[in-house]
Amino acid sequence: MRRIAILAEGKLNPQDAKTAVGILRYRPEAAVAVIDSTHAGSDAAAALGDPSGPGAGVPVVSDVAAVLPYQPDTLLIGIAPIGGRLPDAWRAQILAAIAAGLDIASGLHHFLGDDPELASAAERAGVRIWDVRRPDDALALRIREDQAHRPGSHIVHFCGTDCNVGKMTVAVELDREARRRGLSSGFAATGQTGIMISGEGIPADRFISDFLAGGVEALVVDFASRYDWVFVEGQGSLIHPAYSAVTLGLLHGAAPDLLILCHEAGRAHIRGYDVAIPALSVVRQMYETAAAWLKPAPIVAVALNTRLLNEASAHRALADAARETGLPVADPVRFGTGPLLDALLAHT
Amino acid sequence: MRRIAILAEGKLNPQDAKTAVGILRYRPEAAVAVIDSTHAGSDAAAALGDPSGPGAGVPVVSDVAAVLPYQPDTLLIGIAPIGGRLPDAWRAQILAAIAAGLDIASGLHHFLGDDPELASAAERAGVRIWDVRRPDDALALRIREDQAHRPGSHIVHFCGTDCNVGKMTVAVELDREARRRGLSSGFAATGQTGIMISGEGIPADRFISDFLAGGVEALVVDFASRYDWVFVEGQGSLIHPAYSAVTLGLLHGAAPDLLILCHEAGRAHIRGYDVAIPALSVVRQMYETAAAWLKPAPIVAVALNTRLLNEASAHRALADAARETGLPVADPVRFGTGPLLDALLAHT
Repeated sequence: MRRIAILAEGKLNPQDAKTAVGILRYRPEAAVAVIDSTHAGSDAAAALGDPSGPGAGVPVVSDVAAVLPYQPDTLLIGIAPIGGRLPDAWRAQILAAIAAGLDIASGLHHFLGDDPELASAAERAGVRIWDVRRPDDALALRIREDQAHRPGSHIVHFCGTDCNVGKMTVAVELDREARRRGLSSGFAATGQTGIMISGEGIPADRFISDFLAGGVEALVVDFASRYDWVFVEGQGSLIHPAYSAVTLGLLHGAAPDLLILCHEAGRAHIRGYDVAIPALSVVRQMYETAAAWLKPAPIVAVALNTRLLNEASAHRALADAARETGLPVADPVRFGTGPLLDALLAHT
Repeated sequence: MRRIAILAEGKLNPQDAKTAVGILRYRPEAAVAVIDSTHAGSDAAAALGDPSGPGAGVPVVSDVAAVLPYQPDTLLIGIAPIGGRLPDAWRAQILAAIAAGLDIASGLHHFLGDDPELASAAERAGVRIWDVRRPDDALALRIREDQAHRPGSHIVHFCGTDCNVGKMTVAVELDREARRRGLSSGFAATGQTGIMISGEGIPADRFISDFLAGGVEALVVDFASRYDWVFVEGQGSLIHPAYSAVTLGLLHGAAPDLLILCHEAGRAHIRGYDVAIPALSVVRQMYETAAAWLKPAPIVAVALNTRLLNEASAHRALADAARETGLPVADPVRFGTGPLLDALLAHT
């Protein structure tokens, strides 16, 4: 069991600290503290705005020196820097963690293990730098074949209206619900947070475009050989101006049998772009159309993230979405994952 | 002006030697000889099966030693190795070329400049290794923005039913036809052959998936600032099991105004996969649908590659495609590019 300190300096909020929230929610026993000097002295759940939510009881401290009394063995970079470059203040924190004997886990596109200063410091200290987004050599240049999934396996994939609407969370929740019901189930992570939570998976968005579908195929074929139910994390959105290629490569590489559509209630535009999100029934048709170019797969349920709504509005939003799409709709984090798994089982 | 020897060992045929054929067709003045021991003594056009086609008068020789009398200054790798690894026989040829003072141009995914033996040999000999597929540092980690194209520019993009049906060729032919008519026109290459022909462009299929659309956007915005007509090379196909992500990233990143659908007459399946190519009218709808997720763009003409048909069958195939789609159809290599440019001009 790792003892993880999460670096989330200045960013411990639900929008920016996706990785931190994922670890706090799904590996709470491993998270010993969070570093964010702007919230030091609080606990992580309070800083995130939901005192009984993920991070309850996990202290927030101001820097690496202050985290050492909690005896972490790993510093996990829980946020992405603005502009993609490593800020000097972070570099100092990471060097301090290395000097204190902590391993480093990072999901940044800029590989810390390739940074001469950090790499030589890690070597001197005898610690490991785990760049979660570095593709495995065996998959990095693999071209998609036409490999079949093990008969009897069910591949479920998650389609989003945008980034950061809850696709990974829904996949993890469904995997847990399936295991609770005694089913053979696995969560196939395709992003850095999912990989950090589960300890395996592929960093799809980091793959060379030519080899994305091939890497996803290998991941899913492997999971299908081990589990009856495979929940393949989705990425981005088919209508995302920057990331639609990642989304389609996952959809075609995973070759799913069933789809779940994920949306955040109230989000009207792709975050950061002048692109309106169409009605859910329209988005549903986009994904079913694109899947059918290679292998048909129906959307069988909608996962609606209602975190921005009060409880009455949340129930209304779920009912509205059900009426519009004619599909089962649930918020698995808030109201339970059962209806989504029921919808999947009804299609087998 | 470069003097190029093209390495195409064992592969000097139209299917396998796409890069070689591209150079022979569009930079014939630069190609001094082709290396393929299985065709040595022939000329390149005869080896390619069309004695009056590309490569007429260009000698085929057996190895690097035999090419030196033609005084090349560059060895261009004109084919991709099976399995992706550099065969030992090629390594020996490349080392011989370096020792003879030739620069090396390669479109392989495995960068020759990162190969310690080749890199140190090149340094000793004072020659350059140009890995055409290595993304420019300034674009490699660029996220797509929402940049507008210069008003008055027309972005044309090429949609294929499969790889290797002639998308690059049609784009180059249209650029040439537009220039012949006195229009301001540029060919924006997105693959290694196009880059080798034009000397600029981006290796789209080598981009990290997250940054593909951003790199394409930067390329197209730059070309649109310089030319009224921008012909953006397409890649792959939306129904290609391995490469559909590249195709969608290009379609969304380029944000074209007009599309041209490219097909090889007689091809019924995606090469190497058990995927049937639907009717052209169906493929047309796929591309127009996917474009419209972000920005609508009509397919205004079909480019039909009829190289496998005799002349009567070719004319029949063109007429059939025109009847099925209701669009202008032309084979620009065989019968001229005029109708395609006319169709584009009719939409401005």
